[in-house]
Amino acid sequence: MKISELSRTTGVPVASIKYFRRQGLLPAGRATAATLAEYGEEHVQRLRLIKALTTLGGLSIAATRDVLAAVDRSDSADSTLKAISYALPVPVAQAPAGDEEREAEAEAAAAADVAELIAAMDWRVPSTSPHVHGLTTALRELRRLDADYRLDRLAVYAELAKAVARLDLERAAAFDDSPALAEQAVVVLALSGPLLELLRRLAQEDQVRRRSPEEDPDAG
Amino acid sequence: MKISELSRTTGVPVASIKYFRRQGLLPAGRATAATLAEYGEEHVQRLRLIKALTTLGGLSIAATRDVLAAVDRSDSADSTLKAISYALPVPVAQAPAGDEEREAEAEAAAAADVAELIAAMDWRVPSTSPHVHGLTTALRELRRLDADYRLDRLAVYAELAKAVARLDLERAAAFDDSPALAEQAVVVLALSGPLLELLRRLAQEDQVRRRSPEEDPDAG
Repeated sequence: MKISELSRTTGVPVASIKYFRRQGLLPAGRATAATLAEYGEEHVQRLRLIKALTTLGGLSIAATRDVLAAVDRSDSADSTLKAISYALPVPVAQAPAGDEEREAEAEAAAAADVAELIAAMDWRVPSTSPHVHGLTTALRELRRLDADYRLDRLAVYAELAKAVARLDLERAAAFDDSPALAEQAVVVLALSGPLLELLRRLAQEDQVRRRSPEEDPDAG
Repeated sequence: MKISELSRTTGVPVASIKYFRRQGLLPAGRATAATLAEYGEEHVQRLRLIKALTTLGGLSIAATRDVLAAVDRSDSADSTLKAISYALPVPVAQAPAGDEEREAEAEAAAAADVAELIAAMDWRVPSTSPHVHGLTTALRELRRLDADYRLDRLAVYAELAKAVARLDLERAAAFDDSPALAEQAVVVLALSGPLLELLRRLAQEDQVRRRSPEEDPDAG
């Protein structure tokens, strides 16, 4: 198919398709003339994946490139999963530094909490993991906010997170090693976060409404 | 304290403090001269909250303003929780439209799935809820990706999401109606999403590593 049809089929504008080509996210079409290329089903599939990762998954172009590279060079489902796990962006912005002494104190306390939690959960992750760093930053900020987080409560969240991660991995690992199936594994790992967040927000809305049930639910 | 000290205490640059003032997020200090103002502990607390919402919570300035307005006018803990629940951003970007017929079909199927899930969970949310819309969009995109999501699996995630939401609400509702405590409730509701996501990613990393345990965990 021509680029115009590829655009219609996937809902991705021609300009975006050309941009993804230039950024190395999408392989070239088969050249049929100096300025024409023929695209196939693999381009449709790849474009859908790019769109899912960038819009639903919220990945940057650079992170998307890393994930796709992991999919393309995957020699086993496990190595793909591992690469994807690190290529996905970690959802905590590094906050600007405040008073240095308090900062160091809050950082040390947060790091100790994270280490204690990881030990309690028996999670085998290196101290250099971006996820360890992200969680430490988040807890440090909560400490600076004087927000009441307690490690035993955090452990309850951690158990729930573990249950979700196990479900995700079971689904992702059920796919075998062909590229199309590796792509499905990417979708599971990258999109279960946004999906879970939406479900949590729905459940939260339900529970908030039950606490103040004065309104007709369909009038809101 | 002067603005420079407020900046040092909170780690927020003076230019950002002035920006938050102009955007109406931070109340004015007590004027002590034509160009000088005196700030107090309430400004420190508010700035920390603004920082947490914008950096950790990922809220836009507009969403932060909505949440703070809800905190300030809160007449009860429940009304604050409700306002916050809607002011927080919904984490799904609206994807560009593709082929119209397939689009409408995928949208209708996704909407039916969401309705079935909400009924199964007995969640009392209006069909106009931004969270219902967000989840419908996410499922529609998964359908267009031919990603294998099954409603019974989604229900398992929904149960976990419900457990998290219940924990959040218990914590948030434990605070009483004073503004400082309403702020804590905001922190719980806005930041439990990022926290849960980080814990899920840590659990995922652990499980991926256990599947391919060839490396020393601290060498990565």
